[in-house]
Amino acid sequence: MTTKYIGPLHALLIKAGLADGTDHAHVVAICLFVTLLCACIILGHLLEENRWMNESITAIILGCFTGSVVLITSGGTNSHILQFNEELFFIYLLPPICFNAGFQVKKKQFFENFAGIMLYGVVGVFISFAVITAGCRYIFPAFNLGNFHIKDFLALGAIFSATDSVCTLQVLSQDETPFLYSLVFGEGVVNDATSVVLFRAVQKLDTTDINGLTALSILGSFLYLFFTSTALGVVTGLLSAYIIKTLYFGRHSTDREIALMTLMAYLSYTIAELFYLSGILTVFFCGIVMSHYTWHNVTESSRITSKHTFATMSFIAETFIFLYVGMDTLDVDKWKKANERASFSIAGILLLLVLLGRAAFVFPLSALSNYLRRTPGTRINYRQQIIIWWAGLIRGAVSIALAFNEFTTSGTSRTSEHATIITSTIMIVLFSTVVFGMATKPLISAILPHHLRSFQSDASEPPSPKDLASDLDLQTPLLSLADKQNVIFANGMLRRSSLTMLLQAPTSTIHKMWRKFDNSYMRPVFGGRGFVPLIKKSPRALEVRLLPETDLAPG
Amino acid sequence: MTTKYIGPLHALLIKAGLADGTDHAHVVAICLFVTLLCACIILGHLLEENRWMNESITAIILGCFTGSVVLITSGGTNSHILQFNEELFFIYLLPPICFNAGFQVKKKQFFENFAGIMLYGVVGVFISFAVITAGCRYIFPAFNLGNFHIKDFLALGAIFSATDSVCTLQVLSQDETPFLYSLVFGEGVVNDATSVVLFRAVQKLDTTDINGLTALSILGSFLYLFFTSTALGVVTGLLSAYIIKTLYFGRHSTDREIALMTLMAYLSYTIAELFYLSGILTVFFCGIVMSHYTWHNVTESSRITSKHTFATMSFIAETFIFLYVGMDTLDVDKWKKANERASFSIAGILLLLVLLGRAAFVFPLSALSNYLRRTPGTRINYRQQIIIWWAGLIRGAVSIALAFNEFTTSGTSRTSEHATIITSTIMIVLFSTVVFGMATKPLISAILPHHLRSFQSDASEPPSPKDLASDLDLQTPLLSLADKQNVIFANGMLRRSSLTMLLQAPTSTIHKMWRKFDNSYMRPVFGGRGFVPLIKKSPRALEVRLLPETDLAPG
Repeated sequence: MTTKYIGPLHALLIKAGLADGTDHAHVVAICLFVTLLCACIILGHLLEENRWMNESITAIILGCFTGSVVLITSGGTNSHILQFNEELFFIYLLPPICFNAGFQVKKKQFFENFAGIMLYGVVGVFISFAVITAGCRYIFPAFNLGNFHIKDFLALGAIFSATDSVCTLQVLSQDETPFLYSLVFGEGVVNDATSVVLFRAVQKLDTTDINGLTALSILGSFLYLFFTSTALGVVTGLLSAYIIKTLYFGRHSTDREIALMTLMAYLSYTIAELFYLSGILTVFFCGIVMSHYTWHNVTESSRITSKHTFATMSFIAETFIFLYVGMDTLDVDKWKKANERASFSIAGILLLLVLLGRAAFVFPLSALSNYLRRTPGTRINYRQQIIIWWAGLIRGAVSIALAFNEFTTSGTSRTSEHATIITSTIMIVLFSTVVFGMATKPLISAILPHHLRSFQSDASEPPSPKDLASDLDLQTPLLSLADKQNVIFANGMLRRSSLTMLLQAPTSTIHKMWRKFDNSYMRPVFGGRGFVPLIKKSPRALEVRLLPETDLAPG
Repeated sequence: MTTKYIGPLHALLIKAGLADGTDHAHVVAICLFVTLLCACIILGHLLEENRWMNESITAIILGCFTGSVVLITSGGTNSHILQFNEELFFIYLLPPICFNAGFQVKKKQFFENFAGIMLYGVVGVFISFAVITAGCRYIFPAFNLGNFHIKDFLALGAIFSATDSVCTLQVLSQDETPFLYSLVFGEGVVNDATSVVLFRAVQKLDTTDINGLTALSILGSFLYLFFTSTALGVVTGLLSAYIIKTLYFGRHSTDREIALMTLMAYLSYTIAELFYLSGILTVFFCGIVMSHYTWHNVTESSRITSKHTFATMSFIAETFIFLYVGMDTLDVDKWKKANERASFSIAGILLLLVLLGRAAFVFPLSALSNYLRRTPGTRINYRQQIIIWWAGLIRGAVSIALAFNEFTTSGTSRTSEHATIITSTIMIVLFSTVVFGMATKPLISAILPHHLRSFQSDASEPPSPKDLASDLDLQTPLLSLADKQNVIFANGMLRRSSLTMLLQAPTSTIHKMWRKFDNSYMRPVFGGRGFVPLIKKSPRALEVRLLPETDLAPG
């Protein structure tokens, strides 16, 4: 494990007779961290109804608190249980989060808003990157904040263009604001990938020779990475569907099926990383394909299990990250090396640039989108633009991981400037997660009154009652819109507004073509339920038929 | 992670343009290992019907094969993708296996055979330990096999007293031979724990002063560890039941419930390790308590999910271990340092001692058990004794982990003797797993004809159809025997033999008392379904009622 336990707490435990060798240190660290994770889950549950709090903020605050305790216990030398390791983050924590995002995303909405998502997620990141880089380039020297190199500014631009989609998910509701949710969330995923790709391009850049071609080459390598990563994810997902459909036919084994799905999803991520592609994008698209094909080839038990297992893994990984960020805030080693005054100034400037950089693409691109669609109903109105702008302001674990990658060598900064950037990054992440995160729920309530929120939502998809219904949810994930509308017409519920009708006219054609293709070529090979209704004699029905026999046994 | 990637394969990938930095090496290793795991699952599935193979053997052979390929590719310098790390094994791979064992064990049978299990698992290990230690002490010098210390012999005794319960589980069938299964499996869990405790006692031993008191102090510390570990597991399990019952009442969240169950189970293991108790025992009993209380406090989705998730995690961990053992066989570094001739001799001698050591307790203790029970029906017959003796001969990952702990320092041996022991250990594990493992299924068929096998089985528990029924299985885990017998009498199926009647007479009284206590004191606080039949309006029934609405949507 990347966890490395550091002195003082351990020394205390040795005193108390609870620790001796260095091997044991690891156990102490893991034990504490697992306890904290449990505490986060319980607290998060208790604070669920709270207007200001969410699970990320709870985890960050608990992390800060634990950090303080460790700091005091250790006599001011340390605040850590685990040492941050960007490998831990990129190899173990990020994949389950991204895969689950793809697996649970409402595919119809995601693909309906695909153009918008790409506009914000790709073009937007490039604009934000340019604004932050240029801003740093001109403001930092003006305030005499240290001796930075042009490459540092470029790296900062990439690092702070990565929004935290994890936190956004906890703040926006898929049921209440489905349009905004799918747009902001989809943007978040693409944005993360774009930022990481940009960051890599910047790292490889020869800064002695920057010209117009540099920008073009970055764009070219981005497009290459985007398409190859997506293709890899789709291929792995289809392969898993094919294997399970072919081999497991007739004699299913739930544990093997789940193991194979999990491992193949992870495999897609590692293959992408192996070839220097974007694992985030790959595993996201692998999740989408798996939920459309593979998921329908397995037993009913496997379906329920896989859905909840992936969500749980993602949930634990998220909590882990936020807990860590909270604990990292009080890391004295970093603060000692850093210039504190400069840290605050840099954090302030960067926060302003983040606000500005996001404004610089959300409003113009929304205007562009509105201009292209022309019809008044499809416009992204001004209130929604503000929400989109605001919801993507949070900077999270991706920024921290990238900053550590660029400005530290195996956990420690080489120069005072680099240490300062690290402390600034932590401050920005903490501030944006807690303050922006807390303000988002109230802001949405204030800006979007309820009737406006449901206005943009797809009338055919009623908000689902929480737990049981969500199990059924995935059973109709790609039921075409047309089908649903038929149901609605048939039921005499003409709730479809002229707005959605206009919006979905072109999408509907593409969807019909895809449906035809899916039925004729894809489903015969890769399985999946496709667009037919559930067969009546489903495995679940079978299970229920079996139940009464068990019930016979008297108390 | 403890995974450390080693040179040549990486060098090859660099040549192919697939790798550069050291960071990337990790990704390469993980990617390869995940691919191998997927291959194991698929091959294991294809070979399921095979009489000679099981998943462990498949994994070991695949590991050997990969090892050879890496060895050839690297020009004979290396066979590894990952370096074995006993921490990886004890902290990440063993807990899910042991927890799942407790969670899925048929509690009734386990507790019915409790006395027998403890006899074999505790007294047996002490006898086997004595035989192996004494054997090594007198045989090794006679063959002039190197310069060993008395502590080495004691360590070898502890290391080779640990049977591999994982492999046994794959070989014996819970449905076909339930009595043998519960005995051998129960023994395996207790045996692992006893061996680890013994091993630790030996490591701490002052070898300059060995006398009669030494044995007593080892026994005393064993009893202390056994009871504290069990108590810790039970307490953690009850705590999880209490938290979920109290906090989640009325608003369940499947993902949080599963996360909390998983994390608290893991927490019990780490707390045990923190206090130098036996994590294996703790997490095993935590699993038992969780399946009796916590499991019944969660939603239907959580029940299905948790059951399969724990089984899957255990399955992946097992495959991982066997894959590794296979790969480790061809590790040239170890072979270079070791004395090859001595390795073969030591492996041969130890194998003989293992056979002898196990015979030295299985047959006398069975005789003792038969003598104490007196009534002819409860006897463990000679054929069954042979099966018990044979099924526990396999030495697996626990032996390897303990050997690495004792005879290497961060992966490399200090002396030639120690290197020789490591290679001998690998040979024994490989030989016993493949040869003994392959021979077990045919041996059981030969020794126990079918009518004998079902003779000892509980007639009230019919073999369950594989997948769907297993979901229902856990719903009646502690339905008392009396209840089941009532059912059988009511159905006019007087299948109960005089044998089982006599066997279960005393157990039944204890069971009734426990049932009363459980109903009056435990269930009101910790929840759980207890011994009442399933309520008619279960969440599953609710789900099914919801289904038709989804079905309305036309194709």
